[in-house]
Amino acid sequence: MAGNSIGQLFKVSTFGESHGVALGGVVDGTPAGLEISEADLQIDLDRRKPGQSRYTTQRRESDQIKILSGVFEGKTTGTSIGLLIENTDQRSQDYGKIKDVFRPGHGDYTYWHKYGLRDYRGGGRSSARETAIRVAAGAIAKKYLKQFHGIEVRACLSQLGPIKAENYDWDEVENNLFFFPDASKLEALDDYMRDLKKQGDSVGAKVKVVAKNVPVGLGEPVFDRLDAELAHSLMSINAVKGVEIGDGFDVVEQKGSEHRDELTPAGFTSNHAGGVLAGISTGQDIIASIALKPTSSITIPGNSINTENEAVEMLTKGRHDPCVGIRAIPIAEAMMAITLMDHLLRQRGQNPHVHHEHGPINGSVD
Amino acid sequence: MAGNSIGQLFKVSTFGESHGVALGGVVDGTPAGLEISEADLQIDLDRRKPGQSRYTTQRRESDQIKILSGVFEGKTTGTSIGLLIENTDQRSQDYGKIKDVFRPGHGDYTYWHKYGLRDYRGGGRSSARETAIRVAAGAIAKKYLKQFHGIEVRACLSQLGPIKAENYDWDEVENNLFFFPDASKLEALDDYMRDLKKQGDSVGAKVKVVAKNVPVGLGEPVFDRLDAELAHSLMSINAVKGVEIGDGFDVVEQKGSEHRDELTPAGFTSNHAGGVLAGISTGQDIIASIALKPTSSITIPGNSINTENEAVEMLTKGRHDPCVGIRAIPIAEAMMAITLMDHLLRQRGQNPHVHHEHGPINGSVD
Amino acid sequence: MAGNSIGQLFKVSTFGESHGVALGGVVDGTPAGLEISEADLQIDLDRRKPGQSRYTTQRRESDQIKILSGVFEGKTTGTSIGLLIENTDQRSQDYGKIKDVFRPGHGDYTYWHKYGLRDYRGGGRSSARETAIRVAAGAIAKKYLKQFHGIEVRACLSQLGPIKAENYDWDEVENNLFFFPDASKLEALDDYMRDLKKQGDSVGAKVKVVAKNVPVGLGEPVFDRLDAELAHSLMSINAVKGVEIGDGFDVVEQKGSEHRDELTPAGFTSNHAGGVLAGISTGQDIIASIALKPTSSITIPGNSINTENEAVEMLTKGRHDPCVGIRAIPIAEAMMAITLMDHLLRQRGQNPHVHHEHGPINGSVD
Amino acid sequence: MAGNSIGQLFKVSTFGESHGVALGGVVDGTPAGLEISEADLQIDLDRRKPGQSRYTTQRRESDQIKILSGVFEGKTTGTSIGLLIENTDQRSQDYGKIKDVFRPGHGDYTYWHKYGLRDYRGGGRSSARETAIRVAAGAIAKKYLKQFHGIEVRACLSQLGPIKAENYDWDEVENNLFFFPDASKLEALDDYMRDLKKQGDSVGAKVKVVAKNVPVGLGEPVFDRLDAELAHSLMSINAVKGVEIGDGFDVVEQKGSEHRDELTPAGFTSNHAGGVLAGISTGQDIIASIALKPTSSITIPGNSINTENEAVEMLTKGRHDPCVGIRAIPIAEAMMAITLMDHLLRQRGQNPHVHHEHGPINGSVD
Repeated sequence: MAGNSIGQLFKVSTFGESHGVALGGVVDGTPAGLEISEADLQIDLDRRKPGQSRYTTQRRESDQIKILSGVFEGKTTGTSIGLLIENTDQRSQDYGKIKDVFRPGHGDYTYWHKYGLRDYRGGGRSSARETAIRVAAGAIAKKYLKQFHGIEVRACLSQLGPIKAENYDWDEVENNLFFFPDASKLEALDDYMRDLKKQGDSVGAKVKVVAKNVPVGLGEPVFDRLDAELAHSLMSINAVKGVEIGDGFDVVEQKGSEHRDELTPAGFTSNHAGGVLAGISTGQDIIASIALKPTSSITIPGNSINTENEAVEMLTKGRHDPCVGIRAIPIAEAMMAITLMDHLLRQRGQNPHVHHEHGPINGSVD
Repeated sequence: MAGNSIGQLFKVSTFGESHGVALGGVVDGTPAGLEISEADLQIDLDRRKPGQSRYTTQRRESDQIKILSGVFEGKTTGTSIGLLIENTDQRSQDYGKIKDVFRPGHGDYTYWHKYGLRDYRGGGRSSARETAIRVAAGAIAKKYLKQFHGIEVRACLSQLGPIKAENYDWDEVENNLFFFPDASKLEALDDYMRDLKKQGDSVGAKVKVVAKNVPVGLGEPVFDRLDAELAHSLMSINAVKGVEIGDGFDVVEQKGSEHRDELTPAGFTSNHAGGVLAGISTGQDIIASIALKPTSSITIPGNSINTENEAVEMLTKGRHDPCVGIRAIPIAEAMMAITLMDHLLRQRGQNPHVHHEHGPINGSVD
Repeated sequence: MAGNSIGQLFKVSTFGESHGVALGGVVDGTPAGLEISEADLQIDLDRRKPGQSRYTTQRRESDQIKILSGVFEGKTTGTSIGLLIENTDQRSQDYGKIKDVFRPGHGDYTYWHKYGLRDYRGGGRSSARETAIRVAAGAIAKKYLKQFHGIEVRACLSQLGPIKAENYDWDEVENNLFFFPDASKLEALDDYMRDLKKQGDSVGAKVKVVAKNVPVGLGEPVFDRLDAELAHSLMSINAVKGVEIGDGFDVVEQKGSEHRDELTPAGFTSNHAGGVLAGISTGQDIIASIALKPTSSITIPGNSINTENEAVEMLTKGRHDPCVGIRAIPIAEAMMAITLMDHLLRQRGQNPHVHHEHGPINGSVD
Repeated sequence: MAGNSIGQLFKVSTFGESHGVALGGVVDGTPAGLEISEADLQIDLDRRKPGQSRYTTQRRESDQIKILSGVFEGKTTGTSIGLLIENTDQRSQDYGKIKDVFRPGHGDYTYWHKYGLRDYRGGGRSSARETAIRVAAGAIAKKYLKQFHGIEVRACLSQLGPIKAENYDWDEVENNLFFFPDASKLEALDDYMRDLKKQGDSVGAKVKVVAKNVPVGLGEPVFDRLDAELAHSLMSINAVKGVEIGDGFDVVEQKGSEHRDELTPAGFTSNHAGGVLAGISTGQDIIASIALKPTSSITIPGNSINTENEAVEMLTKGRHDPCVGIRAIPIAEAMMAITLMDHLLRQRGQNPHVHHEHGPINGSVD
C-alpha cells in the first residue's frame, strides 16, 4: 500500500505518472526561514530535463516547477511545501500498442500483476519521470544543507559501459553533457554513444555521489544507520541495482590491515569507510556509488508475452535514453540530500548537554 | 534518535550491548496461529553462535533464546512477542584499556562523538552481538514465510577474500563451517584462514541471499520498493558496505539487449533482475548479494587517537572473528526474511477485487 | 517537523494555506480498481464549502477539486493520487493589519513562536481552509468503504450552544443547512444564530460521527487501538477540544453493571462502548462525538499583544463562521473514514488461516 | 498488525500478557547523559502497583523493574533501553472456566474474532497489566523532562462516580490512596467505595493530567498536532472513553468572547485552551482530562455467549479493581510524558536560526 513517501522529520511524498496531467508532491519538515524560490529548484530540474543532448530522450518537457505553499515572502514558513510540474508533451497515442503487452525489463508485468490494471502510457507511475519531483525536493534539501550547515552534495558519472573515469575533476562535471569528471574520456564517450544509438541498444552506468562537510554523528543505530537509509534512498531510484558505501564491493578482497582507516591527531588518514562507521557519519566525506542498469527500452526486438499469456515480439519505439545513468546525476544528489537532511533534523535532539573539548575531526581525503 | 526498529506491519525492535546484562527485543505483527517454539529460534541462533570453529571468535555464549510473550499453547496470538538472551561470557575486564581510545574501523569514534559518552565494553551497542536478536526475529519470519506461503530464504558465503564459489550446491552449504556452496574450495579456504590467523589479520567476504517461491507483487512504489527496503535491511547489518540486487554492479557494463529478462508463456527466460522489476517482485527468485568488510579487530598494530586527541598505537586483543562474513549467513537470511514478511503483510490489502485468469508466472532460473 | 501526513497503509499528506495559491495533497494507498471521479469528491466538498448560508463565512470559493494522478480510465491504479484545489477568493489585503498582532484564540501566537515567522494572511496554514483536502481524501475513503465493504460513515450536528438534538433522524440531516438531525429544533437554531450574529459573537458545537457495518476486528493493540487512532484523527480537526467514544464522559458516573454491553446469541444488547472493546471494533456501530470550540474570530473587541509584546486591542473583521461546528460535519466524516480505511488495510494481513464457524455478530443498536 | 509501539523520535515498544512469564519493552531515543536508575522507575511503578489498598485488586505483584541495556555507569548511552518485569503471582488456574466464554465489556470477544484464538488468562494482552511497562517508560520520560527542561507532569483523580474534586491541592494528591486533590471528600470516597464493594459493582472515574513549564512551540501541524497526539496516547490507556484538552466538552456551550484566552504583555489571562493553540503548545500548562469506564469485572451476573454462540451467564470472580481510574494516575502521567518528550525531540530541529527578542510568555493560570 502507501509507499510514496520517504523520510521521517524531513518527509517527501510524491505523485504523478509519465503521461498524466501533472507530477507533484508534498515536502514536509523544512525548517522555517530558508530562502527558497522556484528558480532555485529549476536549476536542478534543468540538469535532469529530457531533450538536452542527442544522448537523452527527445521528449520535450519544460519541467517548470511551481511552489504552491509553504513559502511566504521568499522564505519557508515551516509548513508543508506543495510542488507541481505540469506534463506538456505526453503523446499518449504512442503507447496504445503496448496496452496489453509486457515490455521485458520494465514494470509492466509486475504492476499488472500487483494491481490488476495499469496505466500503460509510458510506464505510468513506474516511469523515471516521477524523479522530477525528487529532484525538486532534493534542491530544497541541498539548499538547506548548504546554507545552514555548509554541506555540499555532488554527483558525477564515474563509468558508462566500459569507460571509467580515471581522473576526478569536479569542476569538469558540469562542463559536459555526460556529467563526467574526466575530460580525457569525453571523445571516447561520444564515440561509444554514437555506436550504441546505431545498434539501437542501451548501456549501464555507475554514478558516484559525495557529500562534503557532513558533521560527525548523523545516523541512528542499529536499523536506521545512515548508510542503511542511504542504501534505501539510492536503491529507490529507477534502474538502480547496486549501492556501495566507501570501498563497497572492493572490501571483499581487502585485509583488515588495509581497510581500516587509521586516525591521527590531524584526522583520518584514509576514507575506505566512505564516511560512515557503525552507521554513524565520521565527519569525513560521505561517498556512495550506484549501479544503473541499461534501459530496457531499445529497438532490438525481444520476446515477451501479453496479458493473455501469449508470446509476442517486442521492440520499443518512442523517445528513450540510451543510458539512463546520465540523467540520474541530479537524482542521486537529490536522494542523498534528502536522507542527509532528514538525519540532520533527527540528530538535533541528541545529546544536547554534552560538549566536547575537541570538535569533530574532519579528515577529508577525497 | 530512535533507530532500533525495522518494519511497518511486521516490526522488530531490539536492545542490548555486547557486554550488558542481556539482549532482547519486541517482534510485533506476527499473525496469530503460527506454531512457534524456542527450539525453532534456537536452530538459527546456533548457526550464528560464536565459538563453533577455530575460524570464529572463541567467546562462549550459549545464546539461549527465551520467548516471554505472544505465544500461547504453542501458537502465536497476534500480540507482540518478547525475546530475551542473557549474556553469560562477558569478560568486560578485557576492555578497560580501550576505554579512552578509538579503535580504527570501529564505532568507538562515532559513538563517542554522537553521544558524548559510550559503553566501551566490546563495542557496546555497535557490536555485532546485537544481531543475535535479529536472527531470532528472522527465524519467526522464516517460519511464517515457509509455513503460510511456501517461501524459503537461504544464504551462503559466495566469496571469502580471493576465493570465489564457482559451483552452487545449496545442500553443501550446511555441511561446512564456512557456509560455502562449493566443496572443491574448502581446502583452499582452510589454508587461507590458517595463514590469515598467523598474520593476525582479517579479510572481507561476499554473501549471497536468495528467496524462493516469493509471489509476484511484493513492494510498494515508489520509495518503499522491495529492492530499496532490502537494501536498507541488508545494509543495516554490521560491516556491510555494499548491496546488489540481481546482477548488481555487473549491469554497469551490460547492454540492454543482454540485461533485460525476456518473457515466454512458460515464464522468464533469465533473472538478471534478481526477481524485482520496478520495485515489485516478479515471482522469480529474489537474489541479493552483500559485501562485508574485514573486521578491524586485528592484532597488527595501527595508529589511532584517544579522547584527548593524542596519538596512540592500537592493536586489538581479545576474541574476534577473522572473517565476519561467515557468521553473517543467518543474519542475512534473517534480514531478508523480515523485509519479505513485512511486505507480504503490507501487500495483502492490495487489489482484493481483481482476479487474473493467469496466475503469477514463476520462472525460477537459479 | 513533518506533521502533515496521517495514516500508515492509507496515508494522506496535505499542503496549502488559507490565502496561498492552492491547497493540495497526496492520497497514498488506495487499492486499485476503485471507480472514482472528481464529481465523487465534489459532493462532500460542496457540503463543506463556504458561502452557502448566512450562517457560514461569506468567502466565495468554488473549491473545485482536480485529480492529477492515480486514476486511469475512471479507476484507481493503486498508485498515489494527487489532489489540487486552487484558491480563488483570497483578498489577502484584508489581513495586512494583523501582520504583527496575535489574534486571541488563534494560532498566530504559537506559529510565530514556533517558526519565528508566519504567513499571517487568514491564519496561513493554521486556517481550517486546509480541511478541504481532508474532505476530498475522505471522500475517496468513504467510497472505498462503501463500495468494497458496505461501510457507511455519517456525521451530524448533535448540539449547537445550548440547543441539543433530542431525536436523531438521519434522513433529516442533509435537509437543513445545520446538518441537524432534529427538525423540531430548526427554528430555535435559526433564532439563536441570528442573535449570535447580531452580538458579533460565536458559539461552540458538538458533532456526532457514526460508522455502520464496520466488521469486527479493526484496531491494533495496544497503542494503535482503533479508538486511540480515531481520537488522534478527530482531535486533529481545527477547533476540536474533546473526543468521546460511545458513552464518553458519561462513563464517569456509570456503574459497571450499567455500562457493560451484554451479549446474547443474537448479538449485543446495547452499545455503550461505541463499537470498540479493548481497542478493537466489535462489529457494532462505531460512535464518536467531538466538541468544537467557538471560533475566536469575532467582532467583540479583546485584549492582545503584538510581536513587540505591546498591548493592543483586537477585533476580527473579515468573513468568518459564527459556529465552525456546522461546516465540520463532512470533515468529521472524512477523518473517521480515513482512519477506518487505514485500519481495514492494516487488518487484512491478520489471521488469514483461521476461520470461525460463527461470523462476526453485528448487533447494531443505534 | 504491529501496534505495540508509540512515538517517533522517542519510541516505546512493549510486550507481555497478564499471566505470561514477563512484561517488557524497548525504550528508544532517550538522549545520552541522563542519569537514571531502576529506583527512579520503581517509584512510579509502586504508585501503580496492585494490592496497595482495599480499593484495588488484591493480586500481589512486586512489579520489580530491571533495566537490561542502554544505561552505562548510571547514565543513558543514547542506545535503546531494555525493560523487564517478571510476573510472579499469576494464578492462571483461576481463568480456566472463562476459556470459551466472552466476558461482557472485555476484549475477549474482539480478540477472539480478530485473532481466531486468545490467551484467556486474565485477559492476556488486553489486560491493563501491560501498562506497568508504560509507567516505567514514562518514568524515564518524566525524568528527562524534569532534568533537562524543568517540565513536570502530574495527574490526579478529579472525579470518582458522583464525587468531584472541588479544591485542587496538588500536595494532597500523594497523601491519599485515591490520588484525590480534595481532602474534604476523602471520607465520602471511602464510604462510596465500601458500598460499591458490597454491591459487587464498579464505577467510572475522571483523571486530570497537567504538565507545567512546557515551552511554547511543541506540536507539528496539521495532523501531528500536540493535542491530537495527546488524544492518541491518552485514549490508548485501557478503559479510557473520552479525552479533553482544556475546557473540553464545556466549549460546546461557550461563546467565543468567553472562550478565547486574551493576551497581555504579562502573558495569557486565562487558559481555556489547555495550553494548546492550533495544535502547538502556548507555554501555558498543558491540561487534559480523561474518562475511564467502570471495569466490567464485577460479581453481579450478566448475560453473555461462548465461542459456540450459546447463551451463558457470567460473573467475574478473581481479583479486580472496583475503580480502575485510581491506578490510572501514574499511567496518565506516563502517557503525557512520553508524548511531550517525543514532541520536544521532534521540535529541536525547528527553526534553529531565528531568535526572538521576547522569549515565550508563560502565563500559567492553573
